[in-house]
Amino acid sequence: MNKQQLFENIKRKKSFLCVGLDTDIKKIPAHLLGEEDPIFSFNKTIIDSTADLCVAYKPNLAFYESLGIKGWTAFEKTVQYIKTNYPDQFIIADAKRGDIGNTSEMYARSFFEHLDIDSVTVAPYMGEDSVRPFLVYPGKWVIVLGLTSNKGSQDFQFTTDISGERLFEKVMRVSQTWATEDQMMFVVGATQGSLFADVRKIVPNHFLLVPGVGAQGGSLQDVAKYGMNSQCGLLVNSSRGIIYADKGENFGMAARRESQKIQEQMEILLQENKLI
Amino acid sequence: MNKQQLFENIKRKKSFLCVGLDTDIKKIPAHLLGEEDPIFSFNKTIIDSTADLCVAYKPNLAFYESLGIKGWTAFEKTVQYIKTNYPDQFIIADAKRGDIGNTSEMYARSFFEHLDIDSVTVAPYMGEDSVRPFLVYPGKWVIVLGLTSNKGSQDFQFTTDISGERLFEKVMRVSQTWATEDQMMFVVGATQGSLFADVRKIVPNHFLLVPGVGAQGGSLQDVAKYGMNSQCGLLVNSSRGIIYADKGENFGMAARRESQKIQEQMEILLQENKLI
Repeated sequence: MNKQQLFENIKRKKSFLCVGLDTDIKKIPAHLLGEEDPIFSFNKTIIDSTADLCVAYKPNLAFYESLGIKGWTAFEKTVQYIKTNYPDQFIIADAKRGDIGNTSEMYARSFFEHLDIDSVTVAPYMGEDSVRPFLVYPGKWVIVLGLTSNKGSQDFQFTTDISGERLFEKVMRVSQTWATEDQMMFVVGATQGSLFADVRKIVPNHFLLVPGVGAQGGSLQDVAKYGMNSQCGLLVNSSRGIIYADKGENFGMAARRESQKIQEQMEILLQENKLI
Repeated sequence: MNKQQLFENIKRKKSFLCVGLDTDIKKIPAHLLGEEDPIFSFNKTIIDSTADLCVAYKPNLAFYESLGIKGWTAFEKTVQYIKTNYPDQFIIADAKRGDIGNTSEMYARSFFEHLDIDSVTVAPYMGEDSVRPFLVYPGKWVIVLGLTSNKGSQDFQFTTDISGERLFEKVMRVSQTWATEDQMMFVVGATQGSLFADVRKIVPNHFLLVPGVGAQGGSLQDVAKYGMNSQCGLLVNSSRGIIYADKGENFGMAARRESQKIQEQMEILLQENKLI
């Protein structure tokens, strides 16, 4: 999928919502635990309940890996289920990988060849050769951690060099030179709304993946105000607020209801910005 | 395992070698490909051939994940094999994880609860709350990326703030305050030998995990000269130089020979520093 196609999906669905599949065996409804693969059963219901309201799914690898082989099986089945039934969905493997060249090659092989996923999140600390191996796959994307939404983002990401540039700004300024705008996005945390203006000075045209709306406290209005560009340029993720909206048998309906609330707000914001 | 126990193992074996299990299905001897689990068969032979010459094994997760479920199965079997047959080995899951709190918790659960591995490598970009969840497990270690040995380490790790402090120095100065020396090590790349002196000013007593000796070009003598402390304080990793020393049926013997060469150099360095 390229940038234009992603934008077309956003316009058609009037949504730039990404549903985060942070599926935790300890949090899913009890009635699923007797099923053969409870994690996959849960995801299947969430996906079927939300697919017309969102443009992307973001399974968080940690939640699957924590269950070992069973978790990987559920992850692969989830990816295949989305690809088969909802081929217009943009799939993000939220893995935050980043290693030396030959190791990053292995990760790229895993996500792009073995699983044919659209994109993977990557940590920038090890620099260019840790990111480049992901960029040789046509139509595939790297999503580089820029400014994260957690408290610990203060520890290093705001380190300011002699010229006054902060580390998260340097990361985005430098890493955008490694790829086209059809291959690279940046993670920019939503709890820091006004910082979006600073980010857009550096990467005016790139898509941004925005976690932290909902459970982490960010405002969708602020994100749109400072972050939206002429092709929307935003994928806003919500995980816990959607997938755990109800802990009982109606969790699918509840997930749909929460997704719809967000989609309706997004529709208004897209209209206000004259994109639909 | 605590720091003192690790040092005792080093003295007993006269070695601070870590063997990196970067096992690539495309590089292992052809005669193994007919076996049920070629990756595990390869690892088993490498481990049996080297266990008396090293104190640690470091499977690199990327190589296993690239094969999906089959790879995870081989990884788990490898960890179990080491734990059962060579319980004095320190096992490092080279995963370079780092995510927000609840996600890091899942990774910690995966590596420390599910697999009972001794340590995991962690990327520092997201700060304290991405590392803390790994620190609640008694006897388990976090190995934080400090200064890496790849070319891309130049991109961000040397970013210098107004006080003259470089990012890799800040990462080590700040993150050491989150844990004891029995819970935390740092990755410090060996291709930059003289930088070890700068690193030791910040973390004089911590263990350092040193990749980059061998294939990546670092010198063991330089590492020991600048990096060794009164409890050795070094785990030096070699992967490709050992495990792919021979591509034929004698790969185990060849791995042993290469490990022994390194162990013999290490023995001399430990003697020179009066640690044995």
